Amino acid sequence: MTPERFASLWRSLEPIGRDPSTDGYLRYAWSEADLACREWFVEEALDRSLTVETDRNGNLWAWWGDPVHGDAVVTGSHFDSVPQGGGYDGPLGIVSALLALDELRDHGSAPTRPIGIVAFAEEEGSRFGLACLGSRLLTGAVEVDRVRSLVDRDGVSLVRAMADAGSDPGGLGPDPERLGRVGAFVELHVEQGRALVDLAAAVGVASAIWPHGRWRLDFRGEGNHAGTTRMADRRDPMLTFAYAVLTANEEARLASAHATVGRAEVTPNATNAIAATVTGWLDARAADQSTLDKLVGAISARTEERAGHDGTTIAMTAESASPITQFDAGLRDRIVATLGGPPVLATGAGHDAGVLAATGIPTAMLFVRNPTGVSHAPAERATDADCAAGVEALASVLEDLTCR
Amino acid sequence: MTPERFASLWRSLEPIGRDPSTDGYLRYAWSEADLACREWFVEEALDRSLTVETDRNGNLWAWWGDPVHGDAVVTGSHFDSVPQGGGYDGPLGIVSALLALDELRDHGSAPTRPIGIVAFAEEEGSRFGLACLGSRLLTGAVEVDRVRSLVDRDGVSLVRAMADAGSDPGGLGPDPERLGRVGAFVELHVEQGRALVDLAAAVGVASAIWPHGRWRLDFRGEGNHAGTTRMADRRDPMLTFAYAVLTANEEARLASAHATVGRAEVTPNATNAIAATVTGWLDARAADQSTLDKLVGAISARTEERAGHDGTTIAMTAESASPITQFDAGLRDRIVATLGGPPVLATGAGHDAGVLAATGIPTAMLFVRNPTGVSHAPAERATDADCAAGVEALASVLEDLTCR
Repeated sequence: MTPERFASLWRSLEPIGRDPSTDGYLRYAWSEADLACREWFVEEALDRSLTVETDRNGNLWAWWGDPVHGDAVVTGSHFDSVPQGGGYDGPLGIVSALLALDELRDHGSAPTRPIGIVAFAEEEGSRFGLACLGSRLLTGAVEVDRVRSLVDRDGVSLVRAMADAGSDPGGLGPDPERLGRVGAFVELHVEQGRALVDLAAAVGVASAIWPHGRWRLDFRGEGNHAGTTRMADRRDPMLTFAYAVLTANEEARLASAHATVGRAEVTPNATNAIAATVTGWLDARAADQSTLDKLVGAISARTEERAGHDGTTIAMTAESASPITQFDAGLRDRIVATLGGPPVLATGAGHDAGVLAATGIPTAMLFVRNPTGVSHAPAERATDADCAAGVEALASVLEDLTCR
Repeated sequence: MTPERFASLWRSLEPIGRDPSTDGYLRYAWSEADLACREWFVEEALDRSLTVETDRNGNLWAWWGDPVHGDAVVTGSHFDSVPQGGGYDGPLGIVSALLALDELRDHGSAPTRPIGIVAFAEEEGSRFGLACLGSRLLTGAVEVDRVRSLVDRDGVSLVRAMADAGSDPGGLGPDPERLGRVGAFVELHVEQGRALVDLAAAVGVASAIWPHGRWRLDFRGEGNHAGTTRMADRRDPMLTFAYAVLTANEEARLASAHATVGRAEVTPNATNAIAATVTGWLDARAADQSTLDKLVGAISARTEERAGHDGTTIAMTAESASPITQFDAGLRDRIVATLGGPPVLATGAGHDAGVLAATGIPTAMLFVRNPTGVSHAPAERATDADCAAGVEALASVLEDLTCR
């Protein structure tokens, strides 16, 4: 695989859903941009004489060989992005899958197991708030009633968005027959940090996904006039919020973990009014559950204490909690041997591969180096040369798993 | 004036624009609620055989006597509220003006100067972002072109909003002929702090309005993935913002001044993304200009230093600056003598009275005790008894100024 050959396919997808004013992507699930990506996928799959199907949860599949016989090796990722995200997070795994298949055919490989390429729906959860929605529905890791009640920020339900996009939402839910076809799953993904840069490696293999969770922090105080209320008489929830932001950062550094407050909403949000309420969202992740629990406990305890000092209250609600995902050790060792000993690293990010791994399907991930280390933002990058190396690595893995 | 008589008129205005879920008010300039308040005013003025007119800037006037002869004594305030504000800030001055006029007539007073009641438009600046808009237009304290370009959060221009409400926006701008009629202006207002509570007085008189200003703080960092970006690699503008919030509070306490960050906007504002930018707004006020300058300088310097530490940038832009307003000493002393020596106090809040005082018109303010000290929030209060005392005080002042 030459960098030029990678670039040629990549550039055909690149413009879809890109905001020209920022170079960030707005590829929300079931939006026009997402539908254009899906159409692009169908065209590319049909050009390769693959069999294309959409499952009952809106995930797209393309098959080389008949998957009904089971024990298929599946690869792929997702098209959808976070708001103003990068172009690689998700789509790189799908483009690489198509090109890896081209490699196998160029080599004259004759797989003895079916090979599938999947594009999962709504992985980021940017539109309906629930990450890995398509894979969770497929595996039954989320309640269908909860999914049916999801609405986006404009009040459009998932059910309506699917129907408007021409996908029947009537069958939403676990799909054990289709899941049963998957004998192994390998997801290629752009790295979302700088570990491979520091290790001077183009490709790495995942060991585990850190346990992580999201908490909503509701700070309540007393709305009041900013000009006339004496400082001593205030109960300003913005102060407690600010303290929580700095505390989360400090505690995460102390614990060698990650903690972020990247979202906030203020009421009434007026320049000349002391806030009545502030809501913040905490994202926290660590290498093991005990470290994560201690981290969140410390942030909570210190913020509670500060709220007492500020005359405010803080209520902390877990919105999601994901335990550690250990990828299949046998599959990982086999891939490491095939690829000649690339770096093995854990990641703080959730992925559809983690959802599939939780069902017991042997699952693995490949990472492609990201020179900026930035992800979920327009500066996310991978060089064409590293992407071509990623395609070759994925092709080798597929060949090893299906041709011997 | 009995508390019951005050309450009877007050209750007829009270439901307009009140949000039943919070008891807060949503009386934005030129909204349906604002128009209902204006209609209420016209009805009450006509019931009292006053002459009603709307000026070229949308301010409402009601006259007892012919104002064309000049040297009128004008009283009044505004109807519009901050988002989820209290019901007294503004409307109390208008209701009290109508009832003070009733008092004068009950006393058989025969004013030798015309008496006017004014309801200024858009005092809070909640809809179009510019406080005291109606009085500033009247006195020429704001550029007409700037006002013509103002739009609300939904993109509706002031010009469009006025036209939709049936007011001609064609004549917006200075109105020296109408302003020339005003020989003195007295605004009654609910107190927006607890000074009168501590002094056990129902009514106070203003000495000055503190110098104050608003600054927009633009924090820029690097948007990135919350789960995978190492803490040491981050350039998180939320940290610098949080530091600025806490620093503004600390420095204001040290300076015996007021500083507030009550408004923030985050991009992309997603739970799993480190923010790319945070914008905060600083409201700062102090008893004198030198203290205010030092306060804002200290907040700016410390935040700059922290930005260097965080790998972020901070840009601070003054959005408005108001110098100190000293109310007319002669008028204030005359009012204090008339009322038998009530407390005299400075305020941190801007008012239409401040705009009129800046033109050289003798101007004064009366404050009515607020038991909660809360303002710009639903808990804002004044007892019917204190409001009745306010009406009596205002009636005495008007009688003193017009009947001797």
